[in-house]
Amino acid sequence: MIIDCHGHYTTSPRPHEGWRQQQIEAHAAGKPAPPRPTMTDDEIRETIEGGQLKVQRERGTDLTIFSPRAAGMGHHLGDATTSEAWAAACNELICRVCSLFPKNFVGVAMLPQSAGASPRNCLAEIDRCVNQYGFVGVNLNPDPSGGHWRDPPLSDRYWYPVYEKMVEHAIPAMVHVSASCNPTHHTTGSHYLNGDTAGFNQLMNSSVFKDFPTIKFIIPHGGGGVPYHWGRYRGLAQDAKLGLLSELMLNNVFFDTCVYHLPGQELLAKVIPVDNILFASEMIGAVRGVDPETGHHYDDTKRYIDQLPLSAADKGKIFEGNARRVYARLSAVIAKQSATAV
Amino acid sequence: MIIDCHGHYTTSPRPHEGWRQQQIEAHAAGKPAPPRPTMTDDEIRETIEGGQLKVQRERGTDLTIFSPRAAGMGHHLGDATTSEAWAAACNELICRVCSLFPKNFVGVAMLPQSAGASPRNCLAEIDRCVNQYGFVGVNLNPDPSGGHWRDPPLSDRYWYPVYEKMVEHAIPAMVHVSASCNPTHHTTGSHYLNGDTAGFNQLMNSSVFKDFPTIKFIIPHGGGGVPYHWGRYRGLAQDAKLGLLSELMLNNVFFDTCVYHLPGQELLAKVIPVDNILFASEMIGAVRGVDPETGHHYDDTKRYIDQLPLSAADKGKIFEGNARRVYARLSAVIAKQSATAV
Repeated sequence: MIIDCHGHYTTSPRPHEGWRQQQIEAHAAGKPAPPRPTMTDDEIRETIEGGQLKVQRERGTDLTIFSPRAAGMGHHLGDATTSEAWAAACNELICRVCSLFPKNFVGVAMLPQSAGASPRNCLAEIDRCVNQYGFVGVNLNPDPSGGHWRDPPLSDRYWYPVYEKMVEHAIPAMVHVSASCNPTHHTTGSHYLNGDTAGFNQLMNSSVFKDFPTIKFIIPHGGGGVPYHWGRYRGLAQDAKLGLLSELMLNNVFFDTCVYHLPGQELLAKVIPVDNILFASEMIGAVRGVDPETGHHYDDTKRYIDQLPLSAADKGKIFEGNARRVYARLSAVIAKQSATAV
Repeated sequence: MIIDCHGHYTTSPRPHEGWRQQQIEAHAAGKPAPPRPTMTDDEIRETIEGGQLKVQRERGTDLTIFSPRAAGMGHHLGDATTSEAWAAACNELICRVCSLFPKNFVGVAMLPQSAGASPRNCLAEIDRCVNQYGFVGVNLNPDPSGGHWRDPPLSDRYWYPVYEKMVEHAIPAMVHVSASCNPTHHTTGSHYLNGDTAGFNQLMNSSVFKDFPTIKFIIPHGGGGVPYHWGRYRGLAQDAKLGLLSELMLNNVFFDTCVYHLPGQELLAKVIPVDNILFASEMIGAVRGVDPETGHHYDDTKRYIDQLPLSAADKGKIFEGNARRVYARLSAVIAKQSATAV
């Protein structure tokens, strides 16, 4: 089984994104948001069958761990109330996708974060997504201010209520920023990667893994700049007397394979232990074109993994085993959703 | 000849850094700064002979392109006036090092940037450093606010006065942030690398190379996260219809080799054309320890280049030729300084 741990609903129905715009405009005007739009199952089916499901079939992957569009989370827009309503709408839509395609998608929640607002606001939505929707993880935005970095780092106890909830439910968090509203940072060209690098480094300089020994984080986009600079991080940890970086981080931190060329994948697999790498593509995402050097889509990351000099057992870990381990609820959810499939 | 294009005066005499502290305290108290301390040639010699010169000899490098301590630039501290005085003091000290060790050090200027202040403030100092001190380049901080990213991106015409001056003098800029005063970003653990990645991406999404076809930038620390994500950047450029990334960037942008493990160096040399790679170590810098996996200093980057499967001619470009080309004034300054040497 090939599990892609990083997919967003980038093709969601237009009325959904349209409502978000109305909601933010209403908030700015001091008015209540309009009622949420009705979307039929057929409307949702259409966006998936021509999008993520089609790509799964073309590329030979089986299951996508699926969450709301990351750039669309927009935690810097509106306030805590608009974020709460928007996260609820987005997560409900993911739940509907998983119900309509139970063998192909398992849900991960976006959180109702809001710049400057307590992460405690996220707890009820996490409970709902895990208990009612069967979601297996959350996306945690380390910069709800959208490129201004105005909230505390992930090392701060500010975030501990979310960490406690993650441990309670045995769900991991993918550290994933949303859109940048700072003109110095292009969303997919620097903010995403820098959010990954900063998130890793914040956790590295923290007591989070001492305080939550079983907690798990996925650093997406191949870990931002971290694996390329693994020697730098080993040295920084050593100079700061934090111990061996591998012992400090690798029980709790995992990297996905959203790296869009073979040399980058080779580096990742050379530097990071195979037990800490999870297959992912973020398909229909940041980079949608075909690489003229290969004739294949940049984000068809399965092709790169297929070419790596790893044993079948190791590739099995990357493609399936590690995801089942890191997303501790995943195997049970797969079994349950498969049972509901036609 | 082996030229290290990225060294900072991290071992500068204590009175120099002490004066900076007094200057900032005086500014905060609304008082004039005290007079600058007197430092003897012997005091300066001592910091170099036991520091950078010793390491040059141990590692077999010949010349360091040398600039003030990057984290010490502190463009977020004080105001435009304090930055002007501090940059003058720092650059003067670099000039003295180059005069005392003319065969071993060539100068690069820090700029009197200040958060929110026009880059025009830098022009007189650039003139002075090039014309009077014989410096061959500048360090340009894309985030004078120190991790808050409050100034415009490098794509903005805000920076054009500096670019015009760079072209006038035929000097490149290394895109190098200073210390982070934002608790979300550790200075050497994420702000440096993220500044590199953001700087590259800002230039990529700009008209700077159309407007200044001969301008040159060095992205330090191996280019931040960029080479590891070269496929992503090729794809982003393609999706945005910017053309081939290599044609868009590689006449004007160069990467140094401050990557502290062999797999990272292998990736860099595999992905980036050899003409765009400049040898550098940033020695006595961010990472000072010995790598237990190799028994050598993490930042002894010459050892990694020595191990790369490149021809002697290609290694010659990385170690010397590219630096002489990118720093267009370098060969003349080397000849002039050598003539003054005992």
